[in-house]
Amino acid sequence: MMHSKPTLFTCLSPALLHLYDLNNAVVVIIDVFRATSTIASALYNGARCVIPVDEVAKAIALSKNVDGIAAGERDGKLADGLSHGNSPLEYSPDFISNRTLVLTTTNGTRLLQMALDQDAHTIVTGSFPNLSAVCDFLIKENRNVVLGCAGWKDRFNLEDTWFAGAVIDRVKEHFTIHCDSSHMAEQQYLHVKENIHEHAPQLTHYHRLVERFGLIDDIRFCLTADVANVLPLYKEGMLLKA
Amino acid sequence: MMHSKPTLFTCLSPALLHLYDLNNAVVVIIDVFRATSTIASALYNGARCVIPVDEVAKAIALSKNVDGIAAGERDGKLADGLSHGNSPLEYSPDFISNRTLVLTTTNGTRLLQMALDQDAHTIVTGSFPNLSAVCDFLIKENRNVVLGCAGWKDRFNLEDTWFAGAVIDRVKEHFTIHCDSSHMAEQQYLHVKENIHEHAPQLTHYHRLVERFGLIDDIRFCLTADVANVLPLYKEGMLLKA
Repeated sequence: MMHSKPTLFTCLSPALLHLYDLNNAVVVIIDVFRATSTIASALYNGARCVIPVDEVAKAIALSKNVDGIAAGERDGKLADGLSHGNSPLEYSPDFISNRTLVLTTTNGTRLLQMALDQDAHTIVTGSFPNLSAVCDFLIKENRNVVLGCAGWKDRFNLEDTWFAGAVIDRVKEHFTIHCDSSHMAEQQYLHVKENIHEHAPQLTHYHRLVERFGLIDDIRFCLTADVANVLPLYKEGMLLKA
Repeated sequence: MMHSKPTLFTCLSPALLHLYDLNNAVVVIIDVFRATSTIASALYNGARCVIPVDEVAKAIALSKNVDGIAAGERDGKLADGLSHGNSPLEYSPDFISNRTLVLTTTNGTRLLQMALDQDAHTIVTGSFPNLSAVCDFLIKENRNVVLGCAGWKDRFNLEDTWFAGAVIDRVKEHFTIHCDSSHMAEQQYLHVKENIHEHAPQLTHYHRLVERFGLIDDIRFCLTADVANVLPLYKEGMLLKA
């Protein structure tokens, strides 16, 4: 059909990304706790750009070259040699304005690299803090979409699924969705939509972040819609505010 | 802790099976449409055993050696050289009693082979027709459990997830469940529990089976609890009624 709608698929784990054709698609990298929330926060607060890299050593080396901040985590903790972590609350305007953030994380930045390796047409990052910006962009682009959940070390997680569901809830009229993972994601999101913060304690990741690291404020920020409503768009190695 | 409960995890795709430790676990192979429903049906109706194999050519060769029935499908259709398909309704007592079924399918028998390759301690097959037998066995064994969804060519599907959720709904008091995919599966199942047949048309697989192959009766059987309530237990190359 000439006027058929573009497709939308939800990929529940980086280990399933190879099943999807990214060549003509917008890929939304989703790592709600916390990489893609941190990326939105840094750009919203005036960072010049965020450079996602897949290794700690690369982040350190590159940050020196570009006079940037080497930040990120491994297994949820600040890794040796990085000066800042992966908390969206660390990047206030005072601190981050006009600076370059070089970010490496366990799941999100790795998935972004995988999407690059699979020749994704367009890559953006999404999380609740920039939900509306992501949805508006997907509708405007009118191109196939793959919602890529970063998960936790290739395992499924619910918070990334909730975000995928929130996007689907908003944009579904504009896409052909014939994919059980998308239907599941939407239903999971609708189940928690009205009181998402109260559902957070059921997340495996909540226990890791709150009980081990005390990051309750991070959780709250990462599950709040449109508090850093910019669109991080990947271009030539950097995520820039579109 | 000495008396801690065994763990239960849900694996949403064969492509994620490597993330789980199967060495001391009961693995439940789940392929609701239709391999594991067909296995339950054949054993319930008196088959001597079901031999799962991963290739069509192997199924044909082996069926000749054991004087069995070479059955199965590729992409939902009877494959060349197989005499019977993957429908649970093909295996009535008249036909299957005291015979050996050599079965090869796109997803379920492949996942079983993967679990064998990962040295699973115990392998059983599960589907709605034998829901109670599976749950009773898992409780009695009191061992770690991995619910393995076969999906469709490594993609997530809802019907296998529903079955995983149905098992969790029944056995959860007996296990430590700290796994987002299990929580999601249970919630998805609870959402459809009261009228599962009415929810079937939302499944991607429903369209493949009903619109392309007219298999509405198969769908109904495969989503009905305890209509072939036996426990297929894998032992030395065969699935036998436990």
